[in-house]
Amino acid sequence: MDYETPQFFRVMQYANAATGDVIDMVSGNPDWQPPASLRDGLHDYADADPPEFQYPASEGLAPLREEIAARRGVPVDQVVVTCGAGEANHLAMTEGLAQHSGNEVILADPVYPYYAGRTNLLGGEAQYVPVDDAGRLDPEAVRAVASEDTALIVVNSPNNPTGAVYPGDTIRELVAIAEEHDALLVSDEVYDHFDYTGEFESALSVESEHRVVTNSFSKSMAITGFRVGYGIYPDRLVDRVRTRHMLTNLTVSRPAQQAVYRALRETPPDYYAENRRHLEARIDAFTTALDAAGAEYSMPEGGFYVMARFEGFPGTMANVERLIDEAGVAGMPGEAFGERRADWFRFALVTPRAEEAAERLADYFA
Amino acid sequence: MDYETPQFFRVMQYANAATGDVIDMVSGNPDWQPPASLRDGLHDYADADPPEFQYPASEGLAPLREEIAARRGVPVDQVVVTCGAGEANHLAMTEGLAQHSGNEVILADPVYPYYAGRTNLLGGEAQYVPVDDAGRLDPEAVRAVASEDTALIVVNSPNNPTGAVYPGDTIRELVAIAEEHDALLVSDEVYDHFDYTGEFESALSVESEHRVVTNSFSKSMAITGFRVGYGIYPDRLVDRVRTRHMLTNLTVSRPAQQAVYRALRETPPDYYAENRRHLEARIDAFTTALDAAGAEYSMPEGGFYVMARFEGFPGTMANVERLIDEAGVAGMPGEAFGERRADWFRFALVTPRAEEAAERLADYFA
Repeated sequence: MDYETPQFFRVMQYANAATGDVIDMVSGNPDWQPPASLRDGLHDYADADPPEFQYPASEGLAPLREEIAARRGVPVDQVVVTCGAGEANHLAMTEGLAQHSGNEVILADPVYPYYAGRTNLLGGEAQYVPVDDAGRLDPEAVRAVASEDTALIVVNSPNNPTGAVYPGDTIRELVAIAEEHDALLVSDEVYDHFDYTGEFESALSVESEHRVVTNSFSKSMAITGFRVGYGIYPDRLVDRVRTRHMLTNLTVSRPAQQAVYRALRETPPDYYAENRRHLEARIDAFTTALDAAGAEYSMPEGGFYVMARFEGFPGTMANVERLIDEAGVAGMPGEAFGERRADWFRFALVTPRAEEAAERLADYFA
Repeated sequence: MDYETPQFFRVMQYANAATGDVIDMVSGNPDWQPPASLRDGLHDYADADPPEFQYPASEGLAPLREEIAARRGVPVDQVVVTCGAGEANHLAMTEGLAQHSGNEVILADPVYPYYAGRTNLLGGEAQYVPVDDAGRLDPEAVRAVASEDTALIVVNSPNNPTGAVYPGDTIRELVAIAEEHDALLVSDEVYDHFDYTGEFESALSVESEHRVVTNSFSKSMAITGFRVGYGIYPDRLVDRVRTRHMLTNLTVSRPAQQAVYRALRETPPDYYAENRRHLEARIDAFTTALDAAGAEYSMPEGGFYVMARFEGFPGTMANVERLIDEAGVAGMPGEAFGERRADWFRFALVTPRAEEAAERLADYFA
């Protein structure tokens, strides 16, 4: 299992080199506007006095951490502002492997490839648990592979790539399994603002020294390039995480933190609700057109992604390239995410041309 | 040997809690204006279209990398834009330890404490080589401790804390020693714009697969909070470094990269020259007043820092606190940097009140 980006780049490069018009459904970059107050925050910061251009506290700007802690209902000391959810996850996985006796990392199959890449990088041993047909992880299947060698269980809900939203029971069980085996559950919740079920439950709902929650403003504020995220770490780990964060990055870029802080306070709930409704409508139009293409697909409960499968046309890189050349639609090969959905494709719905793409697929498979 | 920040915070906290007026000579935050074009760059970026708010390439914005490569005379493929020089150094040290058989890390004493902290964090074994009276590292002293167990030699010129600028011969010898022992020289050059000797030589002057150069815009553009730096990595390591960078941070904050790129192209040489002259004048005034205080001190050849020693008053944390309370001057204790200069204090000259501080010291020690 390799990590996502080379595959991602390979697809993007191929799509960019194609002669015809190609609809990009590869990248997970929101295509809508960031909050207006985020732009205001950047403008104000650009005129700030020199001291505001210097190091913020290593663990993040104090008012931003306090705002996060208040919104999430956690002690501010547990909050570390990170270079996106990526660094928050990296810190959690690194300390999880360092502080527990085992080196096994339980991951879902299909997996968000960065978790697999980090497991390799950090010398962990990945154990894949296949998701069920709804794209969810069954806690009993996780329990069956968990042991004293388990250091980490890393999950993501709402899920990339399956679109599943894990039930509250699942999250609670996963924390319990981590506790039973003196391991750490790492719950990546970056798509929490895009829950279409109304039943998403954060792992923060369980008090435990055995869970970390990571999140970011990349998706909710449409700013994947800003690199502002956070981790909420249990007391037993947070000091080590802060030290590692400081020795890795010192701190997170201040203009981005300042702009996010402004946007976090001033953005009305409507901003998030409208983007969610907009995505829901897109998903609806896309999947309706997929029906016409005779595709099997997973109806997302959350997030941006639809996985689909076409009879006799598995989700290989070769078939991704054929779809680019012959249908004018670029998706990700299912095989980039593991074995369980190797026959499928992942389409990112962060393009206004989603419905047009599905129509192209319908024509192609007609 | 612990890392700097807790000591740094401890001193800052103590100074902030003091009842009297205290001149801060602790932090290394430039107190002058960033380039005007940096502010322009941020304003422009704040009005950009949504796609510009999304992930830049993991290794950095292409035009920024190209500008860096052209200025430094290196192939663009060797340039990775990082979260400050801190991340560039972290990546170099991590890969240096991972890719070489030994685990010994040769450091100067006194040392910039983050190198020592990273060595501990990464499971390396620090070997300290005391600097000479001029604050320089003697390459023969390094050669005497280098062996097949050496993975890294980490140096910093212009040096924090001693103010030494290493001669070109030293840099070339250090690269040769790294080559002889199949190790990696990591040369941190963040103060290169503050060379008062005119003789600073970058380790880039030596072609080698055994040297990494790290740098940042934090000091040269007075933006320590932006977290934009870079590493120039040899071909044998650069792919691994890019992978590790991607799996650690994904990429560096884009508003900061964009503003730095603009400032890099548009800032006239006068901006840098004027800040350098300004600092030189400050150093002159500060050291003249230190003469009046009867202090021994190192005349900086580069950088922001003056180390000074007062007869019968060693650089302990207790004495730092006494200077805060009784003289109204906050410096760093020499013992925070190792043994060789444990009797000394480090004063950062990034305050317009530097001369006033020296006068306070003269009064105190009169």
